[in-house]
Formats: sequence, C-alpha cells, structure tokens
Amino acid sequence: MNFDFDQIDAIVNARSIAIVGASGKPGKFGHALVAAQLAMGFEGALYLINPGETEILGRRTYPSLESLPEVPDLVYLTIPAPLSLDVLRDCGRLGVRGVVIIAAGFREAGPEGEALERQALELARQGGFRIIGPNCFGIYNPRNRLTLLPGYDLSRTPGDAAFLSQSGGFSLHLARMGKSLGIPFRAVVSYGNGTDLDECDLLRYFGRDPGTRYVAAYLEGTQKGRQFLDALREACAQKPVLVWKVGKGEASRRAVSSHTGSLAGSAEVWRSALTQAGAISVSGIDEILDVLLALRHLGRNWGQRILIAGGGGGLGTYGADLAEVEGLSVPPLEAGARARLGEILVRAGAVVGNPLDLGTPMIPLPLFAAAMREATANPSTDLLVFDLAVNFARDLVGDSGILEAADALARARRETGKPVAAVLYSRACDPEDMNVEDLLRRVRARLLEQGVAVFPSMARAVRALSLARGPACHRRN
Amino acid sequence: MNFDFDQIDAIVNARSIAIVGASGKPGKFGHALVAAQLAMGFEGALYLINPGETEILGRRTYPSLESLPEVPDLVYLTIPAPLSLDVLRDCGRLGVRGVVIIAAGFREAGPEGEALERQALELARQGGFRIIGPNCFGIYNPRNRLTLLPGYDLSRTPGDAAFLSQSGGFSLHLARMGKSLGIPFRAVVSYGNGTDLDECDLLRYFGRDPGTRYVAAYLEGTQKGRQFLDALREACAQKPVLVWKVGKGEASRRAVSSHTGSLAGSAEVWRSALTQAGAISVSGIDEILDVLLALRHLGRNWGQRILIAGGGGGLGTYGADLAEVEGLSVPPLEAGARARLGEILVRAGAVVGNPLDLGTPMIPLPLFAAAMREATANPSTDLLVFDLAVNFARDLVGDSGILEAADALARARRETGKPVAAVLYSRACDPEDMNVEDLLRRVRARLLEQGVAVFPSMARAVRALSLARGPACHRRN
Repeated sequence: MNFDFDQIDAIVNARSIAIVGASGKPGKFGHALVAAQLAMGFEGALYLINPGETEILGRRTYPSLESLPEVPDLVYLTIPAPLSLDVLRDCGRLGVRGVVIIAAGFREAGPEGEALERQALELARQGGFRIIGPNCFGIYNPRNRLTLLPGYDLSRTPGDAAFLSQSGGFSLHLARMGKSLGIPFRAVVSYGNGTDLDECDLLRYFGRDPGTRYVAAYLEGTQKGRQFLDALREACAQKPVLVWKVGKGEASRRAVSSHTGSLAGSAEVWRSALTQAGAISVSGIDEILDVLLALRHLGRNWGQRILIAGGGGGLGTYGADLAEVEGLSVPPLEAGARARLGEILVRAGAVVGNPLDLGTPMIPLPLFAAAMREATANPSTDLLVFDLAVNFARDLVGDSGILEAADALARARRETGKPVAAVLYSRACDPEDMNVEDLLRRVRARLLEQGVAVFPSMARAVRALSLARGPACHRRN
Repeated sequence: MNFDFDQIDAIVNARSIAIVGASGKPGKFGHALVAAQLAMGFEGALYLINPGETEILGRRTYPSLESLPEVPDLVYLTIPAPLSLDVLRDCGRLGVRGVVIIAAGFREAGPEGEALERQALELARQGGFRIIGPNCFGIYNPRNRLTLLPGYDLSRTPGDAAFLSQSGGFSLHLARMGKSLGIPFRAVVSYGNGTDLDECDLLRYFGRDPGTRYVAAYLEGTQKGRQFLDALREACAQKPVLVWKVGKGEASRRAVSSHTGSLAGSAEVWRSALTQAGAISVSGIDEILDVLLALRHLGRNWGQRILIAGGGGGLGTYGADLAEVEGLSVPPLEAGARARLGEILVRAGAVVGNPLDLGTPMIPLPLFAAAMREATANPSTDLLVFDLAVNFARDLVGDSGILEAADALARARRETGKPVAAVLYSRACDPEDMNVEDLLRRVRARLLEQGVAVFPSMARAVRALSLARGPACHRRN
C-alpha cells in the first residue's frame, strides 16, 4: 500500500479511541488496557465497548462501535483472534482510521491464523483503515497520552526519540527505562506481526516526522527486503537510526517464525545492509538506551579522543583498554594542560596523564573542580569520561561529597562547552542499602539535568560513545 | 623468595594488627582505615599507633610499635611513602609477620619511588616479614573480620571465593557487590605494586587453600612470566580460576606503568597463556560476579543445552541469539515434554518450543508451576533460563505474583535437580519507583536462597553461563 504520512500520523495522534473487549475483570488484557489508558489520562474521548457490562472502572460502557456518539479515530481490539473479523467489518463501515489488534493467534500460530490475518488485512484495505498488529502492545504517545498495554506509569513528557518494535515487552521496557534515564519519547509503536503497518511504514514515518530526532527499531525480520532498505536509507539520511536485529541463529530464527511470523534472513546480509544504509547496529535494550543517551547529551560531532579520569588507577586502565577496543583514542595530555594539572594536583597523590588518576576522591573540592576544568579544556580532549567510583568515594566523602563532585563535573562541561560523561555504577544491591540506591538516583538526575550523560559502567559508557558517533558520513547530524 | 603457604596464611588470618599512621582526623586514610576495622569488628587485638594523639575514635593510641604490649602479626602502614623505611626497620627488629603498605609514591611514581620500594623489600627480607603493597587497600577476610580500606560494610559471612587484585577500588567493589549477590568471600587481597607478595604467591596460596573453591584475579601485568604461568596452571588444576587482565592497548599500558609499575605484556601472549593454563578469561567486575554466581549456584557440570523461557516472544528470541553466539545450544523440546507442555498451556496463548513463550505472565500459578517443571525436566534441557519480565509482569500480576512465580521456579529446580537461572532486570531508575527496586531485591534474595542464580539481564546470564562452563578439561571440578 502507498505510504501516507498523514494517515499514520492521525493514528499515532488519535483524538478518540474505542476499546473493544474492555473488561471489568482484573487479570484480563481488556481490563489492564482500560486501566492503563485511564491511569495515563488519554487526552481524547475514550469509549469502552462491552455488550455484557454497563460500567468498567467507573466509566460507562457501550454495547458496540455503532452505538458510540462519534466514530473513533482508533479502535483497540482486545478480543480473541477469531472474533476480530466481525468488528473489523464494523470499523470499515463506520470509517475509523486505525485499528490496533492486540491478540496473538494469527500468522505466527499456523495456517488457520494465517488465513485469519489475511482476511483482516483485506477488510482493512476494503474499509480504508490501517492495522497495527496483530500480536502487539499498541502505541505509546505522551502527546495525546496514549499508552502501551500495560504501560501504566510511562512518562507524560513528550520527547524526540521514537521506537518501533515487533516486541511488546521490549517496547514497554524501553519506554519505562527511558523515562528516568533522560530519554523522553516522541512515540513508541509495538506493531507485532506488522500485517499492515510494518517496519517499512513506521521507519519512513518516523524518518520524515520533523519532531523525531532519533529512531530506534527492534526487528525480528522483514518480508519486504528492498522496500525496507529504501526506508532505512531514507531515515538514516535524516537522523540517527539504531537497529537491533535478532534472529541470527537457528533457534532464534525458529523463535521469530513462531513469535511474529517474520522472515529473519541471514545474519551476513543484514549486517552489510545495515552498515551500507548508515544505521547504527545495536544489541539489547540497554545498548539502545545508552546510545540514545549519548546522542542526546553528548551529540556525535566530537572527535574520537577521550580523556578518562577517576579516583583510582584500575578504573582508568580498564577504561583505556575498552576505549581502544571500541576504536576511540586515549591520547596523552598536551604539555600545557599536563603542567597545570600537575600544579593543581601536586599534593593529591594523583597520576597526571590520560587516564588521569586522582588517587583518591578525597581531594578538596576546589582542587577537584579546577582539575576537571583543566582536564576537559585540554586541547586533545574531545570528551571527558569521569568515573565517580561510588564504591569507595561515598565512604570517604559522604553523600554531599558525591553530589558536589557531580556539580563540579557539570560546571566543567558548561565552562568548556565540551561533552562530559559520568560513570555512576551501583554498589548497592541489598534491601538494606536502599539509601545508597537513592543517592545514586539523585546524583544521576542532577547530572542529566545539567547535560552530563550518565552510564552505569565504564564498559557501557565507552561502547555507547563509540556507537553514537556512528558511521563517519552521518556525523554532521 | 620461596613460597611458604603458612606464612601467607598467618598474615591473611592475622590475630593482631597495628595501624601505624592511625588518625583522628576525618578525611585522612589513617582515620578511614581505623573506622573501617572498628566497624567491621576485627576479631583480634587492634593497636593504633600515633605519637601525636592519645585517643582515636574512643581507643587509646600507642606512640610506636615498640610500645605495644605484644608484637602484632600484621602492621598496616598508612603514612607517606618516604617515612615507611624507619617503621619497616622496627617491624623487622620486632619480628612481625606481615606489613601492608597502603601509600602510593613508590615504583609507579618514578626513580626515587623505585629506590624506596627496593629498600623496603630489602628490609622485609632482612627482617623475615612479607609485604603486601605498596599502593593498595590491604586484606578483607570475614573470618578474622579484617577489612579493606575503606570497606566499612562488607559481609561478615565467611565464604569460598577469593580475589587477588592490583586495584584497590575494584577489590572493594567486588567484595561489596558479592555481599548481596550470593557470593561470600574467603578473602580478598588488594596487593597494589606487589613488590613482595605478588600475583604468583597469591595465586599459589589461594590455589592450595582448601577453603577456597573459586579464585578470581585482576591483573595489570606481571614481572615474572614463567613463575606466574606455573602458579596459574597449578591453581587451574585445583579449581576454577577467573583472570581479568587489563593493559592491552597503548594508553592502558601507559596507565599500568604509572598505576602499579607492572609490565603489561602483549595481549596475544596473555590470551594464549591464559587459555593454555585453563583459566577463564573475564573482563570487568560485573563479569567476575556473574561467573562466580553461575559457578556457585549452577556448577559447571551441565551440558550446553539451555531452555530459554519467559512471558513474551522477544526475550526468548534475543536469548536464543545470544546463546548461539556464546556457544550454547537451544535445541527443540523433546516430543513428550512438548506434548505435556502443550496440554498445560493450551489456553494460555503460549508458543510451546525452545524458546518457550508463555505469552503472558498472567497464566494461573498452578499452570505456571507445572509448565516450569515440565520445561526443566525435558530430557534435552541441561539448564533452564527464565526471564521474569518484570517490566510488564509486575503491572499484571503484582508483587505477590512475581514472588510466587519465583518460588515456582525454585520448586522446579528442587524437583528436577537441574540448574535454573532467572533473569531479573530492573525496570526502576527513578527516586520515585524505589518500591519496585525493593521488590526486585527481595525476589533476588529469595531466589538465591533457594539455589536459583539471578542475573540482571539475558545478555549477562548467557555470557556467564558460557564462561562458567570453562575449558572442557576442567568441567569436572
């Protein structure tokens, strides 16, 4: 079907939705979905359809789509697969714009389901509406407060990152983690089997959407190789596009076929296609989050020379190892900066170089702040990575010491205009040390507010920095 | 110097220690070290030496080693490097067994420091005592309640994992994280420059120590290639030995030389040496923790066939991809198990296979428990990995649902006798969702208690499983 930006846009930004299969019974998807939309505060009209109930979660219900006071933009079907076709017929007759089919039991379930899915698509074509799904979690969009099943507590702040995903679980996980990691979303679309709107349409849509600055995709495969490559190339020319492709081995290809019924394709073909299109190949939700964080807070226009610093020798050595594996460089300090740092740190037991080992996080704050400024300003430093070494720093300088060090890092960033990343790993994992966890979260929030990217380990920081820079030809974006 | 097991053992298990440089001033290492030993409750006699103070943290002080009522087994020096030699002379004269030198400013700091370090070693030889350090954090040993600088809150439960490390920061981080991840320690030794007791002695010591079941090491390099290889081979023949070697690139080799003054050596040489000796090559504290966890809870005697299960299709597909990259296999279910699982899950929207997708975590608990039992018992399953999908399961089944699912997994482990691993990633990262974090910690503790290993992501689980199996020839250990 021809690509129509406005049609998809109207569905993602629906002003009214109806939930067919809404239920008052906790434990049912139809209940979780209603609860989720209510909790999120969907901003348009929300209609609940269930001929057997009169009220669900305090809202009146309607017996059918036809009994609604208006035709909704978007209809959510959360009824068993075989019952879908009748409702789709109604959707076509009434003129809705889009339908999200949540249920599984279609193409991925065998020949019968495949026939059902084919019929559903035919009804969409006849009725002039588009389908998202089946076998999906739907749309999350903070602009109109649509939310995923069961995304009760996603952020209400509209952002600029988009995610399209064949997996509902991963959609929800990314949206949820992004909330507090400094990655606000433009929209997330969990499209499951993608029988109608698929990775090609959604890539093109987010690629062209002017409010979307970053696109990420979880893909199990595609049925439309050529079309997909065109859409990918087009999107990559506009903005950074992260692609997480699974289904590389035998067992995972088997799983793809029973999960969303996609063709996984050969790993080699995918690798070269993604590289040629200029996409950033990633693996896992954490890596997507890390790269989005690096893009948002650090950009991709810096060189490749990082300065690694911290209180302790091991962490810098390790960081330098990791950086070199990832194709970043860790060059010696320039003479001037080296001399000035030497003066500042002369009594601190520091090892002045790159990596820069402050020796201990106990050095007085004014010295720390001055050292961070010099380290960041150093002409051969494109980006500073500082490891806050919470495992021992907290015992030595206390919560306030760590918060002050964080602020000094942010100040170095402001004053030099250069990107700064912080490594803030957790040292807490007992129910008894939740206070440390709380501190870490406050420090992270404070750093993110001030434009310093925060990563949970040196390995994740360095990997994300390397990936975010992306193919050289795209670094201007 | 000749290797003497009892000599090292007497130092690690010291019955009396003296801290030279103990200080009443918060912010000083000599204060942090005293506070740490007091908080940990060192079980032997603890003597504080400072001629300028009479009382520190409520304990009397002594003006010198000579004024003590007994000769301590172990002396901690936390005074500037140039002042060390005089005290070392006293140590020799009095007949102490070991000295931990915490200060930096020795070999790693240039020619002057190198001369100082050489003299220190000479004094140790003349005096018949051994040195740990300089430039280190010392010993953590829950048996006598010795603790690292500044390890205030390490576990008091003696265990069976040992860690030797040139980095003090990483020693502390590992010891702290191990506390709540189900890895109790036999001992951790941060030995810094290793001027006397070094990686060779400590590897041999922990390799021979009957109470040590697992050995891990953070190495920047060695000055004694041949001797090190012999010690490593010997230790690997006794128990699993994990080696994390840094200093592979140019910048990190520079860092190694200014951190602990070691010879980093070529990456290639190290790689093949470690493999030939039968060591498990790891990278990073997280990887050490994950592998130790896998060894403790899952052993290494299972085949290589894993069954990946969870509520959701994406997570299984991803897991299968990861497993195949790591050399594990994800074989189809055997016919009988497949049929029985099909019967149990017939109405759950599950995809019965390997990976096994329960569709939703909302299936009734008795069905869940029965399915987990069948999946684990399946003859081609050597090990079950279950992803608890907390990102959406919690909204659907609540805290109690997740705790019950965890117990059902533990039951499957008990009933089948096969190893079971759980993936329990965090979906919480805001100061506002600490309640989710608290739940996760309780679930993890409950699973660990019941012998189920818990990993924070599918990627870390699969990688740890693969590494823990180790070289085939060592799998019987």
